[in-house]
Amino acid sequence: MVQGASRGIGLEFVRQLLEKNNKGHVVATCRNPDEAVGLVELKRKYTERLNVLQLDITNESTIEASANSIREKYGSLNLLINASGVLSIPDVLQPETTLSKVQKSALLLTYEINAVGPILVIKHMWPLLKVGGGSGTDREFAVVANISARVGSIGDNGLGGWHSYRSSKTALNQLTKTIAVEFARKKDPIVCILLHPGTVDTDLSRPFQRNVPQGKLFTREYSVQNLLNIINNAKSSDNGKFFAWDGQPIPW
Amino acid sequence: MVQGASRGIGLEFVRQLLEKNNKGHVVATCRNPDEAVGLVELKRKYTERLNVLQLDITNESTIEASANSIREKYGSLNLLINASGVLSIPDVLQPETTLSKVQKSALLLTYEINAVGPILVIKHMWPLLKVGGGSGTDREFAVVANISARVGSIGDNGLGGWHSYRSSKTALNQLTKTIAVEFARKKDPIVCILLHPGTVDTDLSRPFQRNVPQGKLFTREYSVQNLLNIINNAKSSDNGKFFAWDGQPIPW
Repeated sequence: MVQGASRGIGLEFVRQLLEKNNKGHVVATCRNPDEAVGLVELKRKYTERLNVLQLDITNESTIEASANSIREKYGSLNLLINASGVLSIPDVLQPETTLSKVQKSALLLTYEINAVGPILVIKHMWPLLKVGGGSGTDREFAVVANISARVGSIGDNGLGGWHSYRSSKTALNQLTKTIAVEFARKKDPIVCILLHPGTVDTDLSRPFQRNVPQGKLFTREYSVQNLLNIINNAKSSDNGKFFAWDGQPIPW
Repeated sequence: MVQGASRGIGLEFVRQLLEKNNKGHVVATCRNPDEAVGLVELKRKYTERLNVLQLDITNESTIEASANSIREKYGSLNLLINASGVLSIPDVLQPETTLSKVQKSALLLTYEINAVGPILVIKHMWPLLKVGGGSGTDREFAVVANISARVGSIGDNGLGGWHSYRSSKTALNQLTKTIAVEFARKKDPIVCILLHPGTVDTDLSRPFQRNVPQGKLFTREYSVQNLLNIINNAKSSDNGKFFAWDGQPIPW
């Protein structure tokens, strides 16, 4: 299952998961499936293997409905990728350049989308992931991969700014770690990891690509290849950890 | 200025700040000054030196009004302690023992009170802290001390649970670090630190004191003595750092 699959990194995960295997089903979720051009196109090619569901991360009943639909159709999950995320919304949300521009509404909205949403998805998919474990893979466990960001690292924060985005990703890191601890204690066959995709050429990063050093703006293909590599080679000792696209650990 | 001063650690900060100096004014803020018995009592003894203002961390206009009132009366601040915080509210908010009990409303409410609120206070007090710097103290800078908690540390999270509280404090840590970076870059005479008070015998911890090891439940007096010691001895290199009551650094 890829949550947040209409474009960017999420859509590319769906594409590569479908292309790199000959079998296995992919559930792709997004807010507006009818407008998700990339998913509609993939659905034409992979009619049987791709299942597109409507899920709005800010509306818990759509998360529950997706879990019910997956339970009925497949009975389990062996991979959950939370790829949705927000950095800016024209006329609504702009990454803050200074404390004086920090607004409560921006902090709360970004937190709801980037931190709360993925956690509610895991909450509802948990029973399906427990049943699935590593079935159909070389792994002995299911993987939950939350797309975080290096700017969510407190230890690595040397630039400041982007208060809403940073703190939402930091909170996502803490929530993921908290969940990972519970899964491990309950011996559930699930490993949770946090991934920094690098700065990737997507709609999310587009307004902010000007200062990216040459060679540091990745294609979606390259970033997702690397992230899938981390997911496919995950060890149980990776549970609750935070990795960059190249497999290097990132400090909290 | 002590924000969140009606009881617990905040009230004790006000008491010790007044008792340990013969001069200097203390601004104590809380949601309901009329019901703040401890502050009313202190006000009787320190009529001139204590100024109690109404400030509700969830209502930004009351923060602005407090800043205006302080500007008119004193013109500056040399210390800001954000001591407000929520862990549980009967019938509304309970620290989560498992992912399946995580609720969006609890995550958002706790974030608003524990992370967003203190940051909005700093936003509005920033100009006053810039003017104040270390005036009237042995320091060369003003201090902003945000009361965080060890359970907000991701690196130290070995137990799981308490999702809402943990992630709100982790976000507070990131936001404080982000602000500290900006203050340093602008050479503002302000140092921001994060403090873990220990487990202190207050209303906040009372429902959860059962598992605290003997000797590890501190009195308010002891904890605040230690925290004031850190504040009074703060160095500019402490900016953006996270300390326990005994001065030991806490990992992010």
